[in-house]
Order: sequence, then C-alpha cells, then structure tokens
Amino acid sequence: MDCKDLYLMKLKQKRMDLLKELCSIHAPSGEEKLMKDFVLGYVHREMSGWAQKPEIVSEGIHDNLILVFGQPKIAIFCHMDSVGFTLQYNKRLIPVGSPDDRLPTRLKGVDTHGQISEVNCLLLEEESGNTFLEIEDTTNFERGTSFTFASNYTEDGDIIRTPFLDNRAGVWLCLNLARKVENTIIVFTTYEEHGGGSVEFLAPMIYRQYGIRESLICDMTWSTQHIVLGSGPVISLRDKYIPRKLFLDKILKALREEGISFQLEVESSGSSDGGYLQKSSVPMDWCFIGACVDNIHSNSEQINSKDLYQTLELYYVLIKRLNQDEIKL
Amino acid sequence: MDCKDLYLMKLKQKRMDLLKELCSIHAPSGEEKLMKDFVLGYVHREMSGWAQKPEIVSEGIHDNLILVFGQPKIAIFCHMDSVGFTLQYNKRLIPVGSPDDRLPTRLKGVDTHGQISEVNCLLLEEESGNTFLEIEDTTNFERGTSFTFASNYTEDGDIIRTPFLDNRAGVWLCLNLARKVENTIIVFTTYEEHGGGSVEFLAPMIYRQYGIRESLICDMTWSTQHIVLGSGPVISLRDKYIPRKLFLDKILKALREEGISFQLEVESSGSSDGGYLQKSSVPMDWCFIGACVDNIHSNSEQINSKDLYQTLELYYVLIKRLNQDEIKL
Amino acid sequence: MDCKDLYLMKLKQKRMDLLKELCSIHAPSGEEKLMKDFVLGYVHREMSGWAQKPEIVSEGIHDNLILVFGQPKIAIFCHMDSVGFTLQYNKRLIPVGSPDDRLPTRLKGVDTHGQISEVNCLLLEEESGNTFLEIEDTTNFERGTSFTFASNYTEDGDIIRTPFLDNRAGVWLCLNLARKVENTIIVFTTYEEHGGGSVEFLAPMIYRQYGIRESLICDMTWSTQHIVLGSGPVISLRDKYIPRKLFLDKILKALREEGISFQLEVESSGSSDGGYLQKSSVPMDWCFIGACVDNIHSNSEQINSKDLYQTLELYYVLIKRLNQDEIKL
Repeated sequence: MDCKDLYLMKLKQKRMDLLKELCSIHAPSGEEKLMKDFVLGYVHREMSGWAQKPEIVSEGIHDNLILVFGQPKIAIFCHMDSVGFTLQYNKRLIPVGSPDDRLPTRLKGVDTHGQISEVNCLLLEEESGNTFLEIEDTTNFERGTSFTFASNYTEDGDIIRTPFLDNRAGVWLCLNLARKVENTIIVFTTYEEHGGGSVEFLAPMIYRQYGIRESLICDMTWSTQHIVLGSGPVISLRDKYIPRKLFLDKILKALREEGISFQLEVESSGSSDGGYLQKSSVPMDWCFIGACVDNIHSNSEQINSKDLYQTLELYYVLIKRLNQDEIKL
Repeated sequence: MDCKDLYLMKLKQKRMDLLKELCSIHAPSGEEKLMKDFVLGYVHREMSGWAQKPEIVSEGIHDNLILVFGQPKIAIFCHMDSVGFTLQYNKRLIPVGSPDDRLPTRLKGVDTHGQISEVNCLLLEEESGNTFLEIEDTTNFERGTSFTFASNYTEDGDIIRTPFLDNRAGVWLCLNLARKVENTIIVFTTYEEHGGGSVEFLAPMIYRQYGIRESLICDMTWSTQHIVLGSGPVISLRDKYIPRKLFLDKILKALREEGISFQLEVESSGSSDGGYLQKSSVPMDWCFIGACVDNIHSNSEQINSKDLYQTLELYYVLIKRLNQDEIKL
Repeated sequence: MDCKDLYLMKLKQKRMDLLKELCSIHAPSGEEKLMKDFVLGYVHREMSGWAQKPEIVSEGIHDNLILVFGQPKIAIFCHMDSVGFTLQYNKRLIPVGSPDDRLPTRLKGVDTHGQISEVNCLLLEEESGNTFLEIEDTTNFERGTSFTFASNYTEDGDIIRTPFLDNRAGVWLCLNLARKVENTIIVFTTYEEHGGGSVEFLAPMIYRQYGIRESLICDMTWSTQHIVLGSGPVISLRDKYIPRKLFLDKILKALREEGISFQLEVESSGSSDGGYLQKSSVPMDWCFIGACVDNIHSNSEQINSKDLYQTLELYYVLIKRLNQDEIKL
C-alpha cells in the first residue's frame, strides 16, 4: 500500500467515523439540540478549510441551523431529527414519528441524573392482540422521557449497519458537501419525522432573505424491489406529494448531460421535508435526492457506502449545474 | 331561424367548443403548464374586447396564473389541474388525486417522443382482492409518466359528457366571466386535486399586494340525491371545512335580494381550494360556488349546460353586489 | 360567617356565574361571533379595574379577538369555539368537530325567526349498524343550521357539570387572568375544534407585530386513568404533536422552583391550538396548560372547580416568571 492509498484509506475511515458519531447522537423530533450543537461544533472546527466560509444562522430559529454559502440560489434541506419513543404512563412507550416497534430492543434516553443511559425495552401484547413496547425499568427515567435506539454501528465491506442512517447519512452528506460547495444554503431541519413544523417557517425565511426558489431534499428513502442498495443515488419522482414536473425535468436533464447515474423512485406514500415545502406559504420547488436504506426506522438500518459517495458526487455536480443555469422555470 | 338566433346559436357553439378544448388538455396536478399556457394564450387573444383589461401575473408563481381586473376587492380561485395517474414500476399506475379507478379505460400521456399519445389501461386484481390499474404497453412511456383520461366529449341536449369538467368547467366559467367582470382577481391555481400547495402562497400574495379579504371558489361538486343536475348553481354551506357563517350569510342575502336561485349543499367530507385558504397564513373568507357533476373524477363526468350558464350569471350578479357592499364583516 | 367570608363566597359565586354564562353561549366552529361579542363586552365593562388596560385588536381578524397587555413577551391562546352539529339534508345532523354523538340529547340552534330555540335530537341506526343523530322536527330550522348542546349547568360541591367547559373554562381562566396579568397577549381563537384556520394567521401577526416567540395553550384536556379531576392543573408533555423540549424544561423548572404542583400528561393523540402553532409559518414555542374534564365533548362535561382556581394561580405565577426570565432558548 503506497502513501496515497494509505492517505485515502485513512480519509475514508475518518469520514466513516463521522457517520458513526452522527448516528449515535440522541436527537428525536422535538429534542434536536444535541445534533444542532454537534453540527455547529463541526462547522466551527472545519470551515477554515472550506471553499467558501458560510454565514451561520442559528438564533431565533429554534433547534434548526442554516449555513449560507456565498450568494445562494438553491437550498438543501436536511433533517437532523430521528424517530424514537416517549415514555408515557407506567413503563409504556409511545412512538415519536414511525419507529419500527415490532421487536424488543435496547434504547437510550436521558436519565434522572441528566446522563444518557441505556435500558431494555420489551414487546408486550394487549388482550386485543395489539402489541406495544415497554421499558423494563423506569427507576431512572421520568414520565415524558424520550428514547432512541441504542447505538450499534457495524461495517461489513461496503455495508454499514446502524440505527439512524435516516437521516444522519443525510447530515453526513451535507457536512462533506460543505467543504466544496459554493453559493448554496444548507438548512438543517427539525421535526421531519413527527409531522413537521420547522420547514414551514424556514422556507419563508430563506425565500424572503435570500430569494431562494429551488431546493433539494437530502434524505434517505426505503429500499424496495425496485430501489436497491448498491445501485446509486435515488431521485424521487413523487411520493405522497408530487413535485413540479418542470423542476424534475430540469434536474434529470442536467444529470443526464453530466453522465451521472441514479435510480428513479415513484411511490404513492411516504413524505419528507419536501411535503412540508409543498404546503408552505412560499413557492419553492423541491426534489428529493438521497440514498436508499434497508430496514428503515429500525435499530438496524443498512446502507451501501458506495451509494453515499455517489450521492455526494451527484450533489456536487448538480449544484454546480443549477447555479450555472438560469433559475427561471 | 333569424339572424339573431343564428348568432346566438353560433355563440353558444363557440363557447361549448372552448369547454371541449379545455377538457382535452393534459394537466394533472404537478404538471399544469399546458393549462397555464392555454389560458395565457386565450387571455392575450381575447382581452382587447373585455370590460377591463387585466394585469397578468404569471412569473414567480410556478404554474399558477393571476388576472387582476381594476381595483379588486374579491378573488375567485379556480383550479386548473385534474386528477390522473402516475406510471410507477413495471406497468402499474398510482393515482394523482382521487381518480375513479374502478374500471379499465383509455388514457393519454406524454410518450418518449415528447408527444401526447393514448394507451389502454386494464383493471387487475391482487391476491388480496384489491384491484389496481395497469397500462397495457409501456414501450413508449417512461417511469414517472403522468396520465389523464383520453378525451371523449359528447353533447346530448343540455347534457355534456366529458372527463375533466372538474374543473375545466370552472375555468370556462372564469374565462367567460373575464369578459365582463370588474374589480376582481381571478386566480387560476394548481395542485388542488393532490393535497394543495399553491393557494397556500397565492393567498398571502394577493392579501398583501391587493388587500383581498374575500374569495369565491369556482369549482365543481358531485351530484347527490339532494344536489342534482339541472337545478342550478350550487352553494356549499360546508364540506370537510366550514366557511365563516358571517360571510355565507352575506352572500345568501345578496343573492336572495337579487332573485337568484341556487341549490344549498351541506356535506361532511370533500374539500376544495377553500380548505387550503382556511388553513392559509392570512385571514380570507371563502365560499364554494359552482355546478354539480355526475360521475365526478371518472372518464365520463356529466354536467347540465344550463347549470353552467346560470352559475355564470350568478357570479356576475354576486361580484357586482360584493363590490358595492362594504366588505367589513 | 363573617364579612370577609361572605364577600369571598359572593365573589366565588359571581365568578361561577360568569362560567355558567360562558357555557351557555352558542358558538360552534365557524360561528363564533356571539362569543367574540360577549368577551368584547366583558372586557369593555371590566377593564377599568385591571392592572393593565389592554389594547384591543378585533378588526380584520375574523371572529378572533386579541388583548395586548403592556409590552408582551408571551402569548396565551384560548379557543372560543365549541363542537356542535350542522343540519344536513332532511333532519340529519353531521358533526362540527368531534362531539359525543352516542346518545340522544337536547340541542339549541338559531331558528327561522332568528331566535335561539331548543329541539330534541334522536339517535337512529342505519342498516349497516352505524348510528347517526337527527333532530326531531325541522319546521323551524333551515338546512345548514348549526346546533350546540342545550344549556344545562349544575354545581355539586366542587364539581361543575355543563356542556362546553371545553373551552369556556379556558375563556373563564383568561378573563380572570386579565384582571392582574401584565405584559402578555391573550388571543381568543376560533375553529380549534374543526381543523383550525385562525391560529395559522394570528401567530404570524403577533410574531411580527409584537415579537412574540413563546406561547401557552389555555385549553381543557380529557381525564384518564392517569390524569384525574381534583389533582390540579395539567401540563401536556405531548399529544399528537410534540412541543420543543427546551421550552417544556424551562416551564417545568420555573414551576418547580415556585412550588407549584401539577399533573403531567403524555398522549399520542389529541391536539389543540398548539398543533396549529407547530405547523404555522413562524417559530413559536408552545405548551398546553389547562385542566382536565370528564366526558369531554359531551352534553355533560364535568370539572373540579379547585382545578380551575389552581390553574389560574399557575398561570399568574408562570407568566410572571417567564416575563422575568430571558426568553432566549
């Protein structure tokens, strides 16, 4: 192994370490502060080496975070929150977002000492046959405590298995993108998994302040028979909501001209920050571009790291193109 | 037949030709550009003969279109999009909005040559007993292609049968209204059939820029045992959403004083651009006024043309009255 | 009984008379004018004796009402509308919001003479087994008429039984609070029970005009096995929506430091004006604080008046604290 190979291997390992760390942060919807703090810290540490040093908007926008690079024309929305659970009465858990709750698992939450600690959770059955989750022991946890899946990160060749690839892999993409991207806004959002409530005010803000009219949704989607791990970036032509055809066509044309390959997803359900943009009080085009994940919203999500790197490359190329093109549709 | 009768007959035929053409335009939710272009073309051709020449707002508002007549006090919202289907994986179709998908039918969509062409669609059954639609042949159609019902317009006395009376009959009403209307805004909207996303930004825009506080929703509703073809315009007292009583009372009082007859609809479900207005970020009163349609969202919607003409007359009279009255509620 | 006891007893009776009157006002969602008029009248009569005389905002905001005390930092949202029914076709009723419709009952509505009059309503069964409500006699009521439960107020010790404690008890809290509160906005809202549509424009208004960033939702919740009458004010940690953890923590910390006791609610369903705030176009923190009610949305809701007085006290203390604290989260 020569010097360059060694360097690249170490670089890749460093990058995967970042992903591992992101996936371990406790930040279910409504409680994203740890993620915001982590991203803020990362940006402050790293941005001296970036192509453009971003303006950082972090106040007056709750636990969201905005990075403004240069003279932005396009925004990337990337949610930081994850699914999880809330401790209701007795030991019972109720969902935050739509976590996979079909199996007992190990969870973590903030205990009565203010520390994050782990606890087992059991799958029980009501007389009606419905199942529900309970934590084994509430001694150290107060009513209303939020839980997320305990960290459990493994790599096996290109396959990474860990909870919360959705959407820490998206955050990872944005933090890597940040090193080279120009004239773009990256918006790290909250509440995506639980009914929204941040994009609704963030979109009008960047529409008015920076004239942003177009956006990309950097998020993970589920793998299916037709959208599979290892087949590259996924562009969603629609889910529950339908993005504007003219904007999709512009993106697909640009990527095809650049020789970028991707998978095209067409679903009738599922949504993203794109859905909240669609219903927001400003006209902003949106398109979902991300990678696909096996076992999404479970404690063992899986992704192919090659898909991640190709999605990163796609974003580089696409944003450059969109910044060159006339924005008018 | 004397000269005047001949003139009126030709005028009526010309008007029905306009309706026929409107109903043939491929513009499912998310892909309304052809409708916008058609309406824009029509306005530019015709407006020299109109009572007031409108200001045309067409840029920066996606595929929507706004006509501003004089000093407007009231807005008419009229959606241009239709229900339809998206080609998912293999040959399977998923709905755009809520099309009637209980029967095989003939569809049209943009093929790989960029031309609109027709294709048969079949009704198939899953093992579970659920049915779904497939197109017969995907040779010429790409994944994600949108389809609408193939055009099929017939007149039988007063009854017009064609897909997409909902809401091309509404557009027809507005284009006819445009000839004589004064001091009004007509807003041609998108995405009404598929969860909205245009009224949410159009309403704040006209609220702020023109001080609009009241609106009428020009749209079609379904016929029932109580709301029937040939019985005149339909005013909805509520559907899934409930308009403000004070505004309804003002409208009903004005119409009764003018001797205009109508049908009163009361439903607990169904919605319109009125629902999006209700949930928008500005206070804007709304009331649904349109005609009723048999077999709504199917490939053979039916309307009574007399209802259409009476609805047109109602709009003339009502807008004149609302413009005279003090707007304060 | 000495003079002071007599005075206090009369004061309490006067206050309960106010609650009784509030509960008797016909104001289902969409038709809140009578409540607005009542509150306006009350404010004009009483405010000369208040700690701060509020600015009254009542125009251009539909049937909502805003009281601005001093230099406000925090808003209280309190809905005035109630559940009810709309007369559909024939004698059939459809719900406004989610009224308890499992039993025949006595209703009131505005008759053809413009007077509020009562009528019996019957519980009938369709062939499918579904039940529905009909009014006994439509002679005096027009299609589209709205109905609410006939007034029926009783006191039994601390227990008050009457329809529409939800949310006239909230209005009662706010009107009592108004006597002493400083530097606060009280927003009396509409449409809370039927899908919203007022908070969506009221929140941006007070956010922009007064810089309001934090809010409390003054409303009633349902009693359960865990949240019971007589155990004091209820603070909701979440319902269908999840308020921001940082804001909840700030409130709980302040109340614990002040030695105020309360019940903590954790639910996965149900919503309030907080849900509409969550989805609004401005960043505004919210927390639901109210009392619990037995048989909510029925014609015999029950509350413990001690809970009401303790909730009033909690609001006094909390608002004082929030006004002292730095608002930045």
